[in-house]
Amino acid sequence: MPTIHVEMFEGRTLDQRRKLVKELTDATCSALGVQPDSVQIVLTDIKKENWAEAGKLFSDS
Amino acid sequence: MPTIHVEMFEGRTLDQRRKLVKELTDATCSALGVQPDSVQIVLTDIKKENWAEAGKLFSDS
Amino acid sequence: MPTIHVEMFEGRTLDQRRKLVKELTDATCSALGVQPDSVQIVLTDIKKENWAEAGKLFSDS
Amino acid sequence: MPTIHVEMFEGRTLDQRRKLVKELTDATCSALGVQPDSVQIVLTDIKKENWAEAGKLFSDS
Amino acid sequence: MPTIHVEMFEGRTLDQRRKLVKELTDATCSALGVQPDSVQIVLTDIKKENWAEAGKLFSDS
Amino acid sequence: MPTIHVEMFEGRTLDQRRKLVKELTDATCSALGVQPDSVQIVLTDIKKENWAEAGKLFSDS
Repeated sequence: MPTIHVEMFEGRTLDQRRKLVKELTDATCSALGVQPDSVQIVLTDIKKENWAEAGKLFSDS
Repeated sequence: MPTIHVEMFEGRTLDQRRKLVKELTDATCSALGVQPDSVQIVLTDIKKENWAEAGKLFSDS
Repeated sequence: MPTIHVEMFEGRTLDQRRKLVKELTDATCSALGVQPDSVQIVLTDIKKENWAEAGKLFSDS
Repeated sequence: MPTIHVEMFEGRTLDQRRKLVKELTDATCSALGVQPDSVQIVLTDIKKENWAEAGKLFSDS
Repeated sequence: MPTIHVEMFEGRTLDQRRKLVKELTDATCSALGVQPDSVQIVLTDIKKENWAEAGKLFSDS
Repeated sequence: MPTIHVEMFEGRTLDQRRKLVKELTDATCSALGVQPDSVQIVLTDIKKENWAEAGKLFSDS
């Protein structure tokens, strides 16, 4: 608590994931005044054929 | 906004996904009076071994 | 299966909810070839102070 | 209704999934007084490189 | 890890919640061989006007 | 895309929400190289009687 879920397009490198969870955790601690230990983050990779905007899959854009 | 998440069994074709996001977007715009651009949809494919009803996995049904 | 979650701004009327779940169900059955009985939908009302784009709450836009 | 989502590290066997959904369903029926048929469960396998605590991926721990 | 989300109709008592999280935690530890400390559970109360099956809100059933 | 969901205990002020979405957006853009416009964030307030760890509600801790 807090728990953060991030949905993003697949293809991010391990280094990007590392940087992302570090910076999201720092941002959360700074804004909410919580301890890093209390922040859990789950990343979800979404294929472009599974994400749509305006009725159109991103794989078709 | 609105954002729609659909969980469905894996195995849908690209054409089914295309049709699904188009029709869900139209339905949302029609019912809520929003613009297509504002509707985001994320599809999630679930394996039958990861979905259960009445305490039983669908892969065992 | 399928299960649909819709996040939308709070303030929708009961009639809009009725129409939305009816049309989303029809769209899903049409696109995926499933029966209406199998479609579950959960609506979530989001306050404008709890939704942000580009780093800015919608309540501040 | 109720619907239960479980996020867990990937690598669980089919037998563990079977036991998990059976026991979660029993627990839910016992605590809430609902029928097993009404309990749906979706399991999600998370890679260690997609789960973080205290700003650090579990794959790096 | 694991993290469990339960969606259920609103109206459960505090005692039902207490019993539910205790039994779900026990079930998870038993089935997956994890420690109770690692199990987080979030309960979400859903109004009948926000849950639909077969295109019909439960508040209309 | 990316979309971020944050679950946190209820009681955060509007200023904390403002700061949180601003900092999470900056963190995401910095780590993933995306534009602020593409980042959507939804905050969810959880009551202590709806969040449990180790089989115990936080409202009972």
